Amino acid sequence: MPNSYETIPLPVIKRLPRYYRYVEGLHQHGIATISSSELAALLGTTASQVRQDFNCFGGFGQQGVGYSVSHLYKSLSNLLFSDTPIDAILIGVGRLGRTIAHFITHEVKGFSLIAAFDTSEKIIGRSVSDVPVYDVSTLQNFCKEHSPQVAVLCVPQEGASKLAPSLFAYGIKGFWNFSHYDLASASKDIVVENVHLGDSISSLGFRVRNL
Amino acid sequence: MPNSYETIPLPVIKRLPRYYRYVEGLHQHGIATISSSELAALLGTTASQVRQDFNCFGGFGQQGVGYSVSHLYKSLSNLLFSDTPIDAILIGVGRLGRTIAHFITHEVKGFSLIAAFDTSEKIIGRSVSDVPVYDVSTLQNFCKEHSPQVAVLCVPQEGASKLAPSLFAYGIKGFWNFSHYDLASASKDIVVENVHLGDSISSLGFRVRNL
Repeated sequence: MPNSYETIPLPVIKRLPRYYRYVEGLHQHGIATISSSELAALLGTTASQVRQDFNCFGGFGQQGVGYSVSHLYKSLSNLLFSDTPIDAILIGVGRLGRTIAHFITHEVKGFSLIAAFDTSEKIIGRSVSDVPVYDVSTLQNFCKEHSPQVAVLCVPQEGASKLAPSLFAYGIKGFWNFSHYDLASASKDIVVENVHLGDSISSLGFRVRNL
Repeated sequence: MPNSYETIPLPVIKRLPRYYRYVEGLHQHGIATISSSELAALLGTTASQVRQDFNCFGGFGQQGVGYSVSHLYKSLSNLLFSDTPIDAILIGVGRLGRTIAHFITHEVKGFSLIAAFDTSEKIIGRSVSDVPVYDVSTLQNFCKEHSPQVAVLCVPQEGASKLAPSLFAYGIKGFWNFSHYDLASASKDIVVENVHLGDSISSLGFRVRNL
């Protein structure tokens, strides 16, 4: 899809869901308008950052009168969650995989988990969050038939590094990667979001120990 | 504890576990030495970034001869994981909480999960990953008696915003926060690591939709 968003810096895109969370809260509390400085104060950032970020997406409001919260809410919502959900598959139905499957199906907007894959006989043929679990050897055929766009990797490091090139080849465009492996984007047509829970708690540990 | 690390920029500290992961891999593969540029190439960064980051912790090697992998491994390991684990408590024993409890007890170094807390009668009195689940109303007494340093928040937004000030008061020094709530550090003696899984997948969705 041709678009005008490819020049937006990644940190701005990563801040978008946070704006959405706060604006959703304001909307739910019946707040009608908010200025960039009020919003900045809530978020712990600066008004100029808010305005610059919003300008990347065309603005969302008229200067000087504050933002209409309902317009802002609708705009951010449209940006983040299309009416057509993104079809996603889960690779790795262990403990973390099952939790993430439940999270995607129950708490996330804009995604539809359509299948899960594993290598274990114990779980293949069963279901997770109402989604069927298939043998990972059937991945290629499944992708050919259903064209999922996103793969959620909840497999150990070796599994992820082995599977990623195949998944690129099968047409996966986005990776939500929980494995230990740093998945790098193989081309500019593939996007990767690494979630390293181990890194997160380890750096917290360092900071606590050195307070 | 007085220390010399408080001037280290947070992004450098957050990169430390990633360095550790790569160096651990090199160590396991029997690599003896590595130059900053070789390490930088593995990590997808620059040699000067690697050297600058390492200099924050006193260096780890002699210029010109490359780093001894085993020395680097030991140094990073000492920095990240003390012999004395940090006592942590889990607040919220739902699906995510149970997964995170298992993760901390089985896959994380440097932490010891000592108790979990919930409000649900169904789970209070049971255990999660071999750790007892107590009524959240007993939190203050527990903290007084056992002085845990880190709280892992796996509760909904309202729970987190309500509990955080009490936890500060009970002496918690570090928060690993999975709730929707942006926990801000209330003082410079408290450290916070927010993990917003919803933000992570939403920004991935935006990028996939706008490829």
